[in-house]
Amino acid sequence: MVRELALAAKAASGAMRLAASRQKDAGLICIAEEIERARPDILAANALDVANADRAGMPKVTQDRLRLDEKRVAAIVAAVRAVAALPDPVGGYDKSMKRPNGLLIGIKRVPLGLVGIIYESRPNVTADAAALCLKSGNAALLRGGKEAINTNIAVVRAIQAGLARAGLPPQAVCLVEDTSRESAAQMMGLTGIIDVLIPRGGAGLIRSVVENARVPVIETGTGNCHVYVDGDADLDMALEIVVNAKVSRPSVCNAAETVLVARSAAQAFLPRMKARLDEYSVELRGCPETAAILGESVVPATREDWETEYLDFILAVRVVDGLSQAAEHINRYGTRHSEAIVTTNVLTASRFTELVDAACVYVNASTRFTDGEEFGFGGEIGISTQKLHARGPMGCEHLTTVQYVIQGEGQVR
Amino acid sequence: MVRELALAAKAASGAMRLAASRQKDAGLICIAEEIERARPDILAANALDVANADRAGMPKVTQDRLRLDEKRVAAIVAAVRAVAALPDPVGGYDKSMKRPNGLLIGIKRVPLGLVGIIYESRPNVTADAAALCLKSGNAALLRGGKEAINTNIAVVRAIQAGLARAGLPPQAVCLVEDTSRESAAQMMGLTGIIDVLIPRGGAGLIRSVVENARVPVIETGTGNCHVYVDGDADLDMALEIVVNAKVSRPSVCNAAETVLVARSAAQAFLPRMKARLDEYSVELRGCPETAAILGESVVPATREDWETEYLDFILAVRVVDGLSQAAEHINRYGTRHSEAIVTTNVLTASRFTELVDAACVYVNASTRFTDGEEFGFGGEIGISTQKLHARGPMGCEHLTTVQYVIQGEGQVR
Repeated sequence: MVRELALAAKAASGAMRLAASRQKDAGLICIAEEIERARPDILAANALDVANADRAGMPKVTQDRLRLDEKRVAAIVAAVRAVAALPDPVGGYDKSMKRPNGLLIGIKRVPLGLVGIIYESRPNVTADAAALCLKSGNAALLRGGKEAINTNIAVVRAIQAGLARAGLPPQAVCLVEDTSRESAAQMMGLTGIIDVLIPRGGAGLIRSVVENARVPVIETGTGNCHVYVDGDADLDMALEIVVNAKVSRPSVCNAAETVLVARSAAQAFLPRMKARLDEYSVELRGCPETAAILGESVVPATREDWETEYLDFILAVRVVDGLSQAAEHINRYGTRHSEAIVTTNVLTASRFTELVDAACVYVNASTRFTDGEEFGFGGEIGISTQKLHARGPMGCEHLTTVQYVIQGEGQVR
Repeated sequence: MVRELALAAKAASGAMRLAASRQKDAGLICIAEEIERARPDILAANALDVANADRAGMPKVTQDRLRLDEKRVAAIVAAVRAVAALPDPVGGYDKSMKRPNGLLIGIKRVPLGLVGIIYESRPNVTADAAALCLKSGNAALLRGGKEAINTNIAVVRAIQAGLARAGLPPQAVCLVEDTSRESAAQMMGLTGIIDVLIPRGGAGLIRSVVENARVPVIETGTGNCHVYVDGDADLDMALEIVVNAKVSRPSVCNAAETVLVARSAAQAFLPRMKARLDEYSVELRGCPETAAILGESVVPATREDWETEYLDFILAVRVVDGLSQAAEHINRYGTRHSEAIVTTNVLTASRFTELVDAACVYVNASTRFTDGEEFGFGGEIGISTQKLHARGPMGCEHLTTVQYVIQGEGQVR
């Protein structure tokens, strides 16, 4: 069943690959209109999902991620329109090379083909992911979580209606309605059909896909991010960055989980930091030196604290000798997501970006900027924490690959 | 054991990442010198491998792939020197973007980290792969076949001596001396240690790695390649291309396995093609129309013939209606490796490159050019037949990833 659906989507990917930019954009506009038109159906389906979730005892904060309202549907529609307005990432040539034998080798940007996405409860992912896949000339096979199944069915129905109205194959976006583990496992085994599988969600889901998939996977997600306050930092700036990175939205992957402070700045910085974080009731877990400076309200940090992505109002704090020890700590415990240094010293800044192995390295800015919108990608299919294919925020240009087009005049070898 | 070796290589990858271009190049020159100096030891070890292989009944043609002589060692040394002379693929910025909030986001080219390579009998892969990995600032964990184990040990000893002499960590190139299936399986499970695993060898090896690996894999290899002779082809040119693509080196992945001929050209082309291929005793397996034109020496082709990578002096032949049917055949039976059209019609040529989904699409040239050297990459770590990360021939620039370096002045979100 999943295989048949995937084959239908794969067949539609052939038509999407050949579709002109204008037609793909018209398709996205039709999709936006159809979602708008289907708003009552989508909201009714979503109300059913939320009621079911409530009955099943889903925590209120998670229910909020699942819930749609008029404003959120409008945001989904606006996001689809924004994707339509992006430049077409495929069809052009990245570059071309003339070889000594006269062959002209062009590197053409082309779609990946069929993109599989396995995700959890947030229903906006359905339209966002579909729009980015279509814009880049791909088809999408979506498998959302069971909590959002009625919402997802309603959204995909609108998407398919939009595709059909634009003369594009409706199967270019298919939803796996079976939300069992078995259906996810089947997707992971569709070698030769699914060109890339992207898991979006909690650490458990991502680990399961990475461990079990035989199709190519892009690992997304977990962010155990650090801010290093250097001895040469502007402490006012460091304060704003630490507070922003920790408290502006603690539940997301680009929030900071540990602050490292150079010993020479610790006495001056830590009490000010504590005072500001106390306003948000942030719990501090610190090394012995931190505790010695800040007093007994600091919980002693263990190795587990250095390794944990709290996603909560908790912050680990460690005093370090300086740059080298900070980089060592980050490379040992970090998840290679987003790492920041605050310093006024240009040599220290440059050394930090060389030593630290992470997708995004910040100098004097908050880790919270790691995001497809903030990077100017006009949307985001996920944040890659692996090194293959794409690293960091992925927009529709990362849903492409290349094709070498070689023009000759009869050359043989 | 494999894990400890991988951890040592991973640690060395940190030093390679930070090494300056000049130091990496000095390391490669030292390696070339040490391999040259160790030539007697390498040849003695290779003689032992060949004798063992002969005793074990290895076919002579495979023994030839395993065998080294003075000339082949000299070629290995020259290849390492050629890699040293390439531009450094890492350290520079691909581009940078200034965002509305003042953040400067630079996309820096950086090494992948630890590259694992599982390969079979050819011992030149050992030095080639090591050189490309080092040039791009990576460490390499090599696991060759058991047939070449003594040769590989001798070559890696020379490589490590070269690294040490240049002040680089010898463990930047490690050889897994255990050539059991178990050691390969262990490599496939080293999530978080091996950044990418590249299998090089026969279809069985590659399938096994793709099916079983939990670390990111780049699939290489099998090439069921086609030449389509269009109705508007220059038939003299088509003849040279078909003969070259089939017979210049039938055992390699970029050799052609099937020729598709437009019906309007079949009567004129096929008898000439047969006459030329008869000189090389190429066996033809044809569709009924081909047989009707060429007579009973043509073996009737089955579906299996369309699907087979012969790697031999055998060619499947099919008469097609024209471009659409040719593209359909290629997309159905091909392995997305290298596909060629011979035509004088620019519209047909352009349509072919759009319809055919393959890493390399040729217009009026032989498929045999799909090769890192021919593409100007100065070497080749393999030919990717997947779409993720790299597609087609992979040189040292494909052993890199990116790191976003974001410079701010205290921006928060």
